[in-house]
Amino acid sequence: MIKVVILGAGNVATHLFKAFFASEEVTVVQWYNRHLKTIDLHKNKVAVTDDLSALKEADVYILAVSDDAIETLSEQLTFSNRLVVHTSGSTSLYAIEKKHNRGVFYPLQTFSKDTTVDFSAIPICVEALKKDDLKVLKKLAKAIGAHPHKVNTDQRQALHLAAVFVNNFSNQLYRIAHEITESQGVEFDILKPLIKETAAKIETISPYMAQTGPAKRNDKKTIKRHLKQLEKEEHQAIYTLLTQSIKNTHGH
Amino acid sequence: MIKVVILGAGNVATHLFKAFFASEEVTVVQWYNRHLKTIDLHKNKVAVTDDLSALKEADVYILAVSDDAIETLSEQLTFSNRLVVHTSGSTSLYAIEKKHNRGVFYPLQTFSKDTTVDFSAIPICVEALKKDDLKVLKKLAKAIGAHPHKVNTDQRQALHLAAVFVNNFSNQLYRIAHEITESQGVEFDILKPLIKETAAKIETISPYMAQTGPAKRNDKKTIKRHLKQLEKEEHQAIYTLLTQSIKNTHGH
Repeated sequence: MIKVVILGAGNVATHLFKAFFASEEVTVVQWYNRHLKTIDLHKNKVAVTDDLSALKEADVYILAVSDDAIETLSEQLTFSNRLVVHTSGSTSLYAIEKKHNRGVFYPLQTFSKDTTVDFSAIPICVEALKKDDLKVLKKLAKAIGAHPHKVNTDQRQALHLAAVFVNNFSNQLYRIAHEITESQGVEFDILKPLIKETAAKIETISPYMAQTGPAKRNDKKTIKRHLKQLEKEEHQAIYTLLTQSIKNTHGH
Repeated sequence: MIKVVILGAGNVATHLFKAFFASEEVTVVQWYNRHLKTIDLHKNKVAVTDDLSALKEADVYILAVSDDAIETLSEQLTFSNRLVVHTSGSTSLYAIEKKHNRGVFYPLQTFSKDTTVDFSAIPICVEALKKDDLKVLKKLAKAIGAHPHKVNTDQRQALHLAAVFVNNFSNQLYRIAHEITESQGVEFDILKPLIKETAAKIETISPYMAQTGPAKRNDKKTIKRHLKQLEKEEHQAIYTLLTQSIKNTHGH
């Protein structure tokens, strides 16, 4: 049984709490947040506190807080020589105060407040300075059905950056598509099977091989008409830049 | 039973042939291509020809050819007053010679040579000048398990443009993510669950609601570090533009 203390009450903290709570191999011995009100509704399931000096003993302390808060919070912890990890994709392991056994437990997934998260098959990037700590983090990931991946800091930061492209930026393209369809009074829903298939396709072939469309074909006539159809300058600029990027990739 | 003649031998033509061939409600009475060699391997399943004057009688003639070829090919057809449709997302219905009963049968999906296409749940945009022709096209879509959507030309062209954003451009973002992960020797595969979830998420919430990440939070520190991490100027430009677009959408 792995004993865990969660610190923070954002999306990652809340989804991790739910996953740990559901696991038979993990006990959440305590949940800390600076504002007790946010986590108070969970007090029948877990001991809650807003007092850093009252933290219980555990195998792992998970700082699921904003990047900027990691350093300060880790300094404020009154104990030392225990495994303290953060959940950030972009923050150095060394942001954690050096009196602790430091580590990273970064789930590579998109967490919204109102959507449920199934941790099975989610990759969790783990990092630790001690071998035994790495073992604990891998075990913790597996305990919620996730896939642990040992990566170094550069690799984790590359994944975090790449995640912005495939998640935030793709989602913004969906948003623009939503605007385009709405402007002609046609349902955005019609695009959903294509969106799903675009993501599903790269399970079997590389994005390079999966590419189709006017930019790849260098179909100047269609590109010109598309640019004319777009009403917003911002959308025209995105169209032009991504079309050029596809052309560069595919050698036009 | 709907009798169909397919003209053309590209990805759309080939995938449609397979779907029609598998349907009990459709007979492909003939398959035409200018070069017989390309479709010759199907001659044990369907009558093939490279002779436009030898086309058999059918309920629908499907011009699954490149946009530029639609007009000329429709003029070259020796008969008249039969239902002739093209499969293009961006070409006007009126590109088809007016001696025919004109229509559009545009499957909104990405077709690659080497991937199988499941037409069930695929939207097919249908357009026709006559009510009875529209009925035939709807029936034809349903016969292969697809969902017919009656749209006008402006709406179809908006969907075609929006499809470039959600399909070609998203796929290019996956490609860039592939380059970023490779540059640090980390597996692109780790991103696949996130890519899948990003697409799956908008089944239940709008792209607007689904957005997360540094641009939406206006997290300047992370944005600055990400830009520094990117080695290619092109990738920096895309990062900057899409970050600004998210900021504009979410009011920063």
